[in-house]
Amino acid sequence: MEWLEASTENCPVQRTLDVVGEKWMLLILRDTANGVRRFDDFRRHMGLSEAVLSDRLRKLTAVGILRTVPYQEQGSRVRNEYRLTRKGWDLWPVLVALRQWGESYAPDPEGPVLDMRHADCGAEVRVVVECVQDHTALAPKDVHAQPGPGARRRA
Amino acid sequence: MEWLEASTENCPVQRTLDVVGEKWMLLILRDTANGVRRFDDFRRHMGLSEAVLSDRLRKLTAVGILRTVPYQEQGSRVRNEYRLTRKGWDLWPVLVALRQWGESYAPDPEGPVLDMRHADCGAEVRVVVECVQDHTALAPKDVHAQPGPGARRRA
Repeated sequence: MEWLEASTENCPVQRTLDVVGEKWMLLILRDTANGVRRFDDFRRHMGLSEAVLSDRLRKLTAVGILRTVPYQEQGSRVRNEYRLTRKGWDLWPVLVALRQWGESYAPDPEGPVLDMRHADCGAEVRVVVECVQDHTALAPKDVHAQPGPGARRRA
Repeated sequence: MEWLEASTENCPVQRTLDVVGEKWMLLILRDTANGVRRFDDFRRHMGLSEAVLSDRLRKLTAVGILRTVPYQEQGSRVRNEYRLTRKGWDLWPVLVALRQWGESYAPDPEGPVLDMRHADCGAEVRVVVECVQDHTALAPKDVHAQPGPGARRRA
């Protein structure tokens, strides 16, 4: 089957974007991956309205990308913190890939805005597409992509 | 500077999403990366309206992610094909990362929908975050992320 004959309905890129393909969702995940956990911190940091932020946090929790953990500060009511689940952390390569493109094509003149380094050796990190066998970093021309067993013919 | 003190205004994830953070743009890039080049092919494959498709192709071309190449079929007027530029191909890891998450968390029961293999050896491909020095694949806990020299203090 050729790519053009395959239905896009169950395309894995499309299915991911159906869940997190909205800018604020990805930006909330960016903040969460950088340690932000509390509603007011998200709101102030991102300049989001309470309504939009509540809605996105609720959706991300409902699909199991974030989980809530209750906390209580003295004199306050119990509130929820938001943390990435394993399913949420598995979106980390998406975020790092978006960052990498932004640092390349919309850079700040002062240098990297978010510095990411290997904790062990201090070297920079990058996203690569690699072969699972020999771990070679691959360019698009090194990869054959074609509809797999789950592909359906377009109606 | 802590992440929460840094302005999100020049955040590289945000800047990338300002350019391609709209579902249809990323889905057009997915199709382009899989060899789709012509307006009518995009439209039929994705089920997009002409107006939305024209708009997104125009925007992607204006920012230099796609470039147009004229072609002419016998008896027709000259039309434009759309191809990824280097800047566009550099979004490929974003697409592969989105695909990887979708194949994991919204899989088709029949198996992978888009099969991607190393052309040389036939092994599957995956996206990893790695250290540029020793090419070790890294988990989030292996990476220190903090505001870099381009970070600005939040107003």
